[in-house]
Amino acid sequence: MLAPVSEVTYTEAPLLRLGVASLRRWPAFAAELTADAGLSTDAGLVAGTGPPSGIEPESSAGTRPGDGSAAGAGPGFAEVRGLDLRADGTLDVAFGADDMAALGELAAYMEKLGLPVERLTGRECRRLEPMLAPSVRGGLLAPGDAWVDPRRVTAALLAALERLGVPLVRARAAEFLYEGGRVAGVRLAPPPAPEDGIGREVRGDRVVLAAGAWSSELAEVPVRPVKGQIMRLRSPQPLLGRCVRGTVHGSSVYLVPRGDGELVVGATQEEMGFDTRVTAGGLYELLRDARELVPGVTELEVADVVAGLRPGTPDNLPLIGPSGTPGLAYATGHHRGGVLLAPLTTAILLGEESELAALCAPGRFREIS
Amino acid sequence: MLAPVSEVTYTEAPLLRLGVASLRRWPAFAAELTADAGLSTDAGLVAGTGPPSGIEPESSAGTRPGDGSAAGAGPGFAEVRGLDLRADGTLDVAFGADDMAALGELAAYMEKLGLPVERLTGRECRRLEPMLAPSVRGGLLAPGDAWVDPRRVTAALLAALERLGVPLVRARAAEFLYEGGRVAGVRLAPPPAPEDGIGREVRGDRVVLAAGAWSSELAEVPVRPVKGQIMRLRSPQPLLGRCVRGTVHGSSVYLVPRGDGELVVGATQEEMGFDTRVTAGGLYELLRDARELVPGVTELEVADVVAGLRPGTPDNLPLIGPSGTPGLAYATGHHRGGVLLAPLTTAILLGEESELAALCAPGRFREIS
Repeated sequence: MLAPVSEVTYTEAPLLRLGVASLRRWPAFAAELTADAGLSTDAGLVAGTGPPSGIEPESSAGTRPGDGSAAGAGPGFAEVRGLDLRADGTLDVAFGADDMAALGELAAYMEKLGLPVERLTGRECRRLEPMLAPSVRGGLLAPGDAWVDPRRVTAALLAALERLGVPLVRARAAEFLYEGGRVAGVRLAPPPAPEDGIGREVRGDRVVLAAGAWSSELAEVPVRPVKGQIMRLRSPQPLLGRCVRGTVHGSSVYLVPRGDGELVVGATQEEMGFDTRVTAGGLYELLRDARELVPGVTELEVADVVAGLRPGTPDNLPLIGPSGTPGLAYATGHHRGGVLLAPLTTAILLGEESELAALCAPGRFREIS
Repeated sequence: MLAPVSEVTYTEAPLLRLGVASLRRWPAFAAELTADAGLSTDAGLVAGTGPPSGIEPESSAGTRPGDGSAAGAGPGFAEVRGLDLRADGTLDVAFGADDMAALGELAAYMEKLGLPVERLTGRECRRLEPMLAPSVRGGLLAPGDAWVDPRRVTAALLAALERLGVPLVRARAAEFLYEGGRVAGVRLAPPPAPEDGIGREVRGDRVVLAAGAWSSELAEVPVRPVKGQIMRLRSPQPLLGRCVRGTVHGSSVYLVPRGDGELVVGATQEEMGFDTRVTAGGLYELLRDARELVPGVTELEVADVVAGLRPGTPDNLPLIGPSGTPGLAYATGHHRGGVLLAPLTTAILLGEESELAALCAPGRFREIS
């Protein structure tokens, strides 16, 4: 989900600022990526029905003329069908009185920040999303939130690298190479990949540590793995028109409709170290909570279930920017926001976002060297 | 499960008789199968701790001398390690007052039939199986019930056929061949399997329809598919020492510990036609009910989930014996009891069980020709 608004809690104002800034960059980023990857812009997937209201695209300088041609589509989010990028908003729903009160507080906080949200009754929620459970008492619509298929984004990034002629070494970096007090590259873990034509060392003027949950294996960064289990269901007709979130039995669950009819249900948050087992308990929670939100999911086929590791940090903010060592920068600790924050991460690394860069500065943690 | 006792309800006396008779035949059947398939009898899997009490093995005429050598193992169930056959009994547990009353009625019925069961308190249940939920109020132990790994049984049957030189044609039979009022073989569905060296027809003096849930595609038999979803969990240590069953939220769930540490959780019963999708709802029920019985399952890894089709009949009894057409016999409609009833099915087809054969006679359904 590219959902800075509905993801936020009112203790996380800095994270919200990062998310909103990055979402503004997403239309241009997606257009550039789509063009660089050579993706068709009418890949048959449903595009957003227009640009997000309230949050204006940063600029369309990066877009290629003629890419966005869908009827009724605006200049921002529409030209990125190949990534299954949609901007129909997210709906956060509440069941009990406590949930309703929490949503009310969130709405007030959003409005104070000038962020567009709409408070809805249970009936209005079901008018938007008829498959919602009858027990939904109310909700909050964040019309500017968007979502994208991360598998397509990753595939497009790889395709773009290839088309741009960037050499790709598919091997694990074991440690940094130091030369004269600078980081000058990485040493690859055995076995090396001789078919790449590159030996056991890869050198570069600039090294970016972007190893996700495994970043602390290479540097002294306070990044830990946060396990998430996620399930994909196959739906003959789409059950939902937009992302729906809710808090069920104290745990947060979301349902994301994909352009190809899949419905993604996520995600557990577990402090289990580097454990990527799909467990009976994790699966049970996802199914229980999804059923509570949208009872009709019980009829859907289970396509797959996977477990992954998010890179968590002590303050839930990413580490982006120069490390204490010349030649080495960090781009890690994005926790649940890696896809949303991708365009902003690049901008910070390129020195285009000095104010927001301060929020992500690795130096805020004393242990970082 | 080879569990005629705990599977029965007191409306199903005929099915109980079939199950008990077939379980008596299982030790000899397993020994013969193990030998014919060339399986090692000390394959490293846990064998039953002895013959089932109360239900004596029919005979050990089929066993090979020297096959059963485990210390403390009896003459019946012990020599069949390669099939993961175990005879430690099944435990049927109850949560509420209604469940307790139903178990009490079942116990009284069993005792009237002279079948061994033991009534246990909740505390006694947990002494036998410490991982059981604290909310279990009581149970019924059927010490003679056994269980076996059906995948191993099937693999052993195929290996035995090969070792005995029986030709195997792996193709779908599309229809019967009739000659002079007799069934004389089958016509194979396209595409034929030319690599078998056999054409589009396979002939035989005797044809047995054993096509499970698909039997009604070949003959006018009242057999319908009954969908079952089943889940296998991976357990580092065994959570259970024996099969445990219970009724949770009105649906019956069982947990079967395998010799390799897996725990099988089954099974839904759904009237869905030829639908073999694993669904969110089916998976949810299995997980919910298994958790209720043994809360510790939540920590286990999900190895896989599959859906299969059982061959159901109007009276829940199988169809075994001659059809109305010379040359054709039926061995179908075993519903949930295909593995348990395998030895008895053969005996009936060979004319060794005339009294029980009457219960399974296909002619009891008028529509059968």
